[in-house]
Amino acid sequence: MTRTILPRSSRFPILPWRKFSSLTGPRSAARAISTATRDPRTKMRTWELDEQHLSKIRVNPTRLIDELHYTCQWGTGQRWGKADSETGMSRLALSDADKLARDWFVDTTKSLGCKISVDAMGNTFAIRPGREDGPPTCAGSHLDTQPSGGRYDGILGILAGVEMLKVLSENRVETAFPVGVVNWTNEEGARFPISMVSSGVWAGEIPLDRAHGLKEVGGGSHTMKSELERIGYLGSLPASYEAMPLAAHFELHIEQGPILETEKQKIGIVKGVQAYRWYTVEVDGQEAHTGTTPFNSRADALLAAARMICTSHTAAADHGALASTGILTLSPGSVNTIPGKVTFSLDIRAPTDHILDKLEEHLKSDFDFIVSTESTHGLGLAVSWQTDSVSPAIHFHDDCISTVRASANAILGDDKLSREMVSGAGHDSVYASRRCPTSMIFVPSRNGISHNPKEYTSPEDCAIGADVLLQSVLRYDRLRFARKV
Amino acid sequence: MTRTILPRSSRFPILPWRKFSSLTGPRSAARAISTATRDPRTKMRTWELDEQHLSKIRVNPTRLIDELHYTCQWGTGQRWGKADSETGMSRLALSDADKLARDWFVDTTKSLGCKISVDAMGNTFAIRPGREDGPPTCAGSHLDTQPSGGRYDGILGILAGVEMLKVLSENRVETAFPVGVVNWTNEEGARFPISMVSSGVWAGEIPLDRAHGLKEVGGGSHTMKSELERIGYLGSLPASYEAMPLAAHFELHIEQGPILETEKQKIGIVKGVQAYRWYTVEVDGQEAHTGTTPFNSRADALLAAARMICTSHTAAADHGALASTGILTLSPGSVNTIPGKVTFSLDIRAPTDHILDKLEEHLKSDFDFIVSTESTHGLGLAVSWQTDSVSPAIHFHDDCISTVRASANAILGDDKLSREMVSGAGHDSVYASRRCPTSMIFVPSRNGISHNPKEYTSPEDCAIGADVLLQSVLRYDRLRFARKV
Repeated sequence: MTRTILPRSSRFPILPWRKFSSLTGPRSAARAISTATRDPRTKMRTWELDEQHLSKIRVNPTRLIDELHYTCQWGTGQRWGKADSETGMSRLALSDADKLARDWFVDTTKSLGCKISVDAMGNTFAIRPGREDGPPTCAGSHLDTQPSGGRYDGILGILAGVEMLKVLSENRVETAFPVGVVNWTNEEGARFPISMVSSGVWAGEIPLDRAHGLKEVGGGSHTMKSELERIGYLGSLPASYEAMPLAAHFELHIEQGPILETEKQKIGIVKGVQAYRWYTVEVDGQEAHTGTTPFNSRADALLAAARMICTSHTAAADHGALASTGILTLSPGSVNTIPGKVTFSLDIRAPTDHILDKLEEHLKSDFDFIVSTESTHGLGLAVSWQTDSVSPAIHFHDDCISTVRASANAILGDDKLSREMVSGAGHDSVYASRRCPTSMIFVPSRNGISHNPKEYTSPEDCAIGADVLLQSVLRYDRLRFARKV
Repeated sequence: MTRTILPRSSRFPILPWRKFSSLTGPRSAARAISTATRDPRTKMRTWELDEQHLSKIRVNPTRLIDELHYTCQWGTGQRWGKADSETGMSRLALSDADKLARDWFVDTTKSLGCKISVDAMGNTFAIRPGREDGPPTCAGSHLDTQPSGGRYDGILGILAGVEMLKVLSENRVETAFPVGVVNWTNEEGARFPISMVSSGVWAGEIPLDRAHGLKEVGGGSHTMKSELERIGYLGSLPASYEAMPLAAHFELHIEQGPILETEKQKIGIVKGVQAYRWYTVEVDGQEAHTGTTPFNSRADALLAAARMICTSHTAAADHGALASTGILTLSPGSVNTIPGKVTFSLDIRAPTDHILDKLEEHLKSDFDFIVSTESTHGLGLAVSWQTDSVSPAIHFHDDCISTVRASANAILGDDKLSREMVSGAGHDSVYASRRCPTSMIFVPSRNGISHNPKEYTSPEDCAIGADVLLQSVLRYDRLRFARKV
């Protein structure tokens, strides 16, 4: 994903949610709510619950997981095990399967008393009214999957949001402000080739026209707009944080990595998204015959590239960062010809931009050293870098992070069972975080596998994550109430 | 090239040349020649020349290089400099351009008194009679080139042979036995995809039907046989060392490497062809997200492959061998996915089979170590080897090597200007050596470059090489005479 990054100071220029999260305010406003006429159908009000009662509001684990697998009837993918639910998913954005999953989302949330808004990108907001009007505190994620994806990436976040609405409904919980669930369109970028494109449009960072004009990959002629129209999800609401402000955004997601599983922990309290940079590195050498050219007369572009790849890992480890090469091409590509040119991708990631600055500097120097020492007899090797993508580190909002931490402690009862993390991958929460306070909740991924039919998170872990999501939304609602008073 | 290798003991089963190169024999036979009626048109007889006179028989350097460039009008390739001769060559075997070059070869050698024989593979033998009948001592190489080749690889060997015939003719030299020049078909394997295929058929190591049935690369429908017919070079002579025995084969060729140039030497006395083995190495790891997978949870097939490539070079250098990787493919090939599978070619070469045995053993152990140390958390990496080609070391015939050495000393006057070498590449001399005594003569290649339009050997170096070729053929003829007596 390539995108324009706003300077930090201008990220929240005129934000509707600010009036609700202001740290100071007249206490009289709170009093106005707490003494308002009570709706006799309401069983509990978030702002009145003590810690003990609040912590007891939990999801129904069986219903959550049954409903998750129920919705996987739309876009069922590759089978990997014998049980009914042991298949992957292949639910590309705006496909017929995606339309059916969306229809289920709309029907279910409507039946739970939500108002549905669909914007011009098909982002679908199911909002449950609170005691007061205002932007909703939302759980959000996505129902689309990779073509060879699993049942949890994105789907779990939406299903946990819907389960939250069911819990609020059956317990007749009244929130101070609206709460809701948002299904963002085409998060995967697997059908229309920009990831997180629709939260990006909502955040004002991707132009609507560009997004609408995206053609499906693989040479098809459908665009996002034509497919939104075809399946009936081209909404009349502008796709914009101004037209549909959010008070906060919480996203439950599988970790997609092995850390929680390895550390035997249950919840990742996601403080942000690591910085990453993508480069294309080109190494130019000299084609020569493998049989007739002694080592000291070679300028072997592949040997140099191999040394660079090894070095990038060592250096990244030294800096507490990651380095990866996923693409490598060479020419001319003949068994008995030494490659004259190699091009490879380099993906480096770290929790802070500063670490990446240092690592980039380190690698540029190391790669220069490699081409200088490989170079002999005037044949010469050369290396050049092209920067393809720069994504600065994202720091989620402290209020949301604290809310997730308090919720995890309330559910797990032991802070050793959770850990603070940064996300290695991008999510809709990246764009959401530019326009409203945001945090994420991670649950373990078996073997760290995702984007794969075998992606798996146990029902118990799904329920723990959904409990933390529910608690986070309720606690943030209480925070909004408290700060208003 | 993949081919069946005969066991060493059966290489020369019933060789026609043996009767001429026998080390013992009645002295009366020699006397029979030396006292035979002299042809009044003959100016000199090889067997009567003393060393001083023999060494003075030299090529005409200007005529050699002018004729070489003249023949490059057929199949002229890519221009790289301003002079008329500063282009490469693109003369694919059995093309229209190749036919014109062949016609020139036949017409020129006929006019020099040669008898022409074309065999079923289009191999063309131009034989100049000697005092006695018998298999000819031949200079041989090829007129076909790579699609993006140069003016010297193969061409120089044929042109130097033709120049030899001119020198013999204008000096009215009589040889004891026939001498000649052979143009082997499709040495490059660039149009019909087996290198040295026609010398291979002649040697009885590639079946005629397989060679005739070879289709041109790039999806064309022409076969070697149909193209031989079309251009009129499908000869009636069987393509066989039995139908057309050679007494010896000398091949002048550019080095295609940088050693002579680097060492400031003029002639390579080629003792043989190094052994080589080609493998396909497959590394299997685990696809994973580059952003969410810590180093200690990865099974990165590309990182392991990069370490193997680095190690193969270090180990080969330690063994006095070569190692090269010219092809590398990986999957799935996405910037942010760690490759789960990498396949790469490995080409190892050494002067002896024993060194390759040791190197192969060393690398298998090293690669196993690399996958075991990269492997963590039970994800595992695995490596597997497939052997694609085994070509044992070729040892040329001591008589021919000694003849080339004596010729180089006669021409250069200083044995520091020549060196014994093994060829890194395959040549028609490899197959010739299975059926008759053989050696090769190398001349410097500028920057070691070949299979490239810029391939270049100076006119002076071409002439030195042609002189050594001429001397070698004459000296071998004297050897045959001396041994017969």
